[in-house]
Amino acid sequence: MSLQTWETKAQKGRDILENSIPKQWLLPADKLPPATQKNVTDLPRQSGLLNERELSITDMSATALVAEMGKGSLTAEEVVVAFLKRAVLGHQLLNFATEFMADEAIARAKKLDAYYQKMGKLVGPLHGVPISVKEHVGLKNRTCNTGYVSWIDKVTSEDALLLQLLANAGGIFHVRTNQPQSLMHLCCSNNITGQTLNPHNRELTPGGSSGGEGASMGFRCAPLGIGTDIGGSIRCPAAFCGVYGFRPTALRNPLVGIKVAAAGQESIHGVVGPLASSSLEDLELFQRAVLDQEPWDVDTSLVPIPWKKVIPSRDITIAIMWDDGCVRPHPPITRALRHARDKLVAVGIKVVDWEPYKHGHGWEIISALYYPDAATLQHKQLQASGEPACPLSEWSFSYSKGKTLTHAETWALQEERDIYRDEYHALLKRRGVDFILSPAYPAPAAVLGESHYWSYTAIWNVLDLPAAVFPSGLAVDSELDILTAQDAKYIPRSEVDEREWKKYQGPDRYEKAPIALQIAGRHFKDEETLAAARVVDEVVNGVKISNL
Amino acid sequence: MSLQTWETKAQKGRDILENSIPKQWLLPADKLPPATQKNVTDLPRQSGLLNERELSITDMSATALVAEMGKGSLTAEEVVVAFLKRAVLGHQLLNFATEFMADEAIARAKKLDAYYQKMGKLVGPLHGVPISVKEHVGLKNRTCNTGYVSWIDKVTSEDALLLQLLANAGGIFHVRTNQPQSLMHLCCSNNITGQTLNPHNRELTPGGSSGGEGASMGFRCAPLGIGTDIGGSIRCPAAFCGVYGFRPTALRNPLVGIKVAAAGQESIHGVVGPLASSSLEDLELFQRAVLDQEPWDVDTSLVPIPWKKVIPSRDITIAIMWDDGCVRPHPPITRALRHARDKLVAVGIKVVDWEPYKHGHGWEIISALYYPDAATLQHKQLQASGEPACPLSEWSFSYSKGKTLTHAETWALQEERDIYRDEYHALLKRRGVDFILSPAYPAPAAVLGESHYWSYTAIWNVLDLPAAVFPSGLAVDSELDILTAQDAKYIPRSEVDEREWKKYQGPDRYEKAPIALQIAGRHFKDEETLAAARVVDEVVNGVKISNL
Repeated sequence: MSLQTWETKAQKGRDILENSIPKQWLLPADKLPPATQKNVTDLPRQSGLLNERELSITDMSATALVAEMGKGSLTAEEVVVAFLKRAVLGHQLLNFATEFMADEAIARAKKLDAYYQKMGKLVGPLHGVPISVKEHVGLKNRTCNTGYVSWIDKVTSEDALLLQLLANAGGIFHVRTNQPQSLMHLCCSNNITGQTLNPHNRELTPGGSSGGEGASMGFRCAPLGIGTDIGGSIRCPAAFCGVYGFRPTALRNPLVGIKVAAAGQESIHGVVGPLASSSLEDLELFQRAVLDQEPWDVDTSLVPIPWKKVIPSRDITIAIMWDDGCVRPHPPITRALRHARDKLVAVGIKVVDWEPYKHGHGWEIISALYYPDAATLQHKQLQASGEPACPLSEWSFSYSKGKTLTHAETWALQEERDIYRDEYHALLKRRGVDFILSPAYPAPAAVLGESHYWSYTAIWNVLDLPAAVFPSGLAVDSELDILTAQDAKYIPRSEVDEREWKKYQGPDRYEKAPIALQIAGRHFKDEETLAAARVVDEVVNGVKISNL
Repeated sequence: MSLQTWETKAQKGRDILENSIPKQWLLPADKLPPATQKNVTDLPRQSGLLNERELSITDMSATALVAEMGKGSLTAEEVVVAFLKRAVLGHQLLNFATEFMADEAIARAKKLDAYYQKMGKLVGPLHGVPISVKEHVGLKNRTCNTGYVSWIDKVTSEDALLLQLLANAGGIFHVRTNQPQSLMHLCCSNNITGQTLNPHNRELTPGGSSGGEGASMGFRCAPLGIGTDIGGSIRCPAAFCGVYGFRPTALRNPLVGIKVAAAGQESIHGVVGPLASSSLEDLELFQRAVLDQEPWDVDTSLVPIPWKKVIPSRDITIAIMWDDGCVRPHPPITRALRHARDKLVAVGIKVVDWEPYKHGHGWEIISALYYPDAATLQHKQLQASGEPACPLSEWSFSYSKGKTLTHAETWALQEERDIYRDEYHALLKRRGVDFILSPAYPAPAAVLGESHYWSYTAIWNVLDLPAAVFPSGLAVDSELDILTAQDAKYIPRSEVDEREWKKYQGPDRYEKAPIALQIAGRHFKDEETLAAARVVDEVVNGVKISNL
């Protein structure tokens, strides 16, 4: 057998990971829970690996951590060590990391502590905050495989611009996180480091493509993480893992230095944005820290729009989209939307129903524009190593129907996309709706390998609307979420609707899955959208709006 | 002979024009100057067609006209009639129009006058200002051929968004103007209404593709005009006709409703922007009138950046680009740049030399991105009627080298484009340069059919920098601009350089051609760029900066 098989090369990627794990913090194999144990969120405490102070540190939000470091009551070093320990354990349980950077992170924390000691102030708004980083965000002098075996030796010459800005603000990068092959699954599996699991239920996917980030946030391996999103890849992991995620309007956050197969493709802009383990406030902290540095003065593809301070207000109109007109959400999702609706109405916020506008058409546009070249570039990366395509890669490649579009066909789709955007925007205005509250996915989370329906998130990509995901406060309930007689009678509108509806069967398959809400705002109303999410979070979950 | 030849169809376009001309204002054929008379700018006075008051009205800027109408000393009706008369004469001499809209324009003017009478105020910042409109900007219930014979029957269902905004502001559209076949000549000839001429010298082209607008402004058929620009199509006509033109940064002015063959193409964004017969101030007036209406709230492809008030300041650094490193400008151009440099230096403005950065590379990128489909869509429109391709259409189609790019190749070019933009921007910052003053074209104006070299304008398209063109105050001089012994010794750097240099021969070929300056600013610094142009115009031409 040749040593040059793709498996040999994939092993290199696993070696990078294996060699990077700080062994001193590994939980001995005999203390790990059985693979059959679904929920592992209690392990940080149960394992005894983290002491009380470390548990309390890792329970804090980025905002709270920075405040404590500002008071001198925490050091950056102990913060990063606590999160590193938790991340090592998380990785043992969930396989979410692709590389640890413990020594560098601790060295950097020490420098920040020295700065604080000397200057009596923090270096910036993210001083000492550990941030996990999706693997395809380039880090200087490190490999960047973007989920392809053939790219395992590719070394990056410079930190991605976003990392430079976050580092300027005081952020510390301690762990890089897993992504699916081709980046185009709402799941997280590749031929290098394998499959990442959901901390709430290891039979479920953490979502994808920023699935390593979903797991990182869900297990609290960092207060903040960096994901990317071209169809739901930030929001789906946030939803599945019960955390917070934000897809900004395109051309606000810098993509320079983030590696993808189809670089230069701009029919549908990918975006980079934050995930947070603890709060919407942290998503805003991240956005402000980045945009206050005016990244458009380096990456001129960005629009020069500063991050505005928007005071959350209840004087807004929220429309609830119960169903996208194509695929019926599972019972727990509808329950969570009702729960939110009732609470919002109770405090007097104006809530209306949102009749979806041509979401099937929107999906036709975006799914065709993902692969106008019939995924040639993605196939090329697979062929370069000989690695097999993962089932969900094949699934997304099939969006192209194997057809290469002409430029004229692509341009016609781009024109349709813009018309659809303008129509949707006009409709929001005509209906007097500021924000749309909706599911992030038809199910609370997908069973591993089953993430097939993207449109609840991808619709905001084709429309380029900012959208935040946050927990509803509810989880799948074995009693409340059983299929009713009414449910059993549901006649699906299409094969797709039937396929997704049949996946539910009952709450057991989705045990302990958190249920998320998604809120989308108007184009470029990123600040308003996060502010509105905080209003809903306050009303529905009782989270106080505090940092104003 | 079949009645369905393309000539028959083209005749329809000529009929639309012919039937629209207000016959009462035609100068009898025997009073027209001989076709051999090159310069016709004095004809409005010489012909006796316009009275003193009308001559004085048509000599005014839009800003001045609005001020007079605001005082009640001019009516919108007399303003529009004066410009209509001038436009009819201009058309007889220059063949610049595709359709007159005299009745509608006068009716609209009467309504504005009635509004003013009743309300005692103007309807908006462009109250009563006649605006000529490039033909491919759609007008409700009118045909829109975009220079293609096959499109002659295409009727538009709605006014282009830009026209709606300008009309809201009080603008009046009285004449539609000519464009070249395919829109891709820096010249102005098609198989429908033929060739438009330059008012300063009818052996020269007015430039293109907004060549009808160039002629309209140069002959003062309107104080303001609407052009479009994907490689110089606003700035080249402004330069050749001795007037003012502005190419805004892409995604600021709305393109919705403007018809092109490759709709949806966005590798290189076309832009729409103003030309003005009288002043840079009017360009700003136009921009402010449009952007103050927040067009991004309708056309969501635009960036939501309001038009800022920028006070012109001499505390700027201007770099002069004497030569783009590829094609040497003709002697009059260099003379005008020296003239400007000397005046700027004399008043203490910081002026440095600009060493061009990879302009050949920039041209390679943009010229490849114009036609990634080997101009298939353009050829398709020609084939639909059977009309022959004009020589300059063939010229621009040849940029594709007959090769259809793959999506991967297009994306790679888009990535290169963005890298080039970032590098150029970084260079401006590193060199401390705010604005680049340069030629708009290697020659003062091109002889008809000779507009071959686009890169002095197209470079700012590929870089997406805002750029304004305005007169240097100089024109080609039969003594000052003779080829010197030194010039005769010039050894061109390439075939292209040789081709363009050899066109000059001496001042006679370009008799009376005005010489323009072009100023480009940083990405999205549209307001600053117009302000800087006004500073240069003040220093070089003594134009007072008055409306602040």
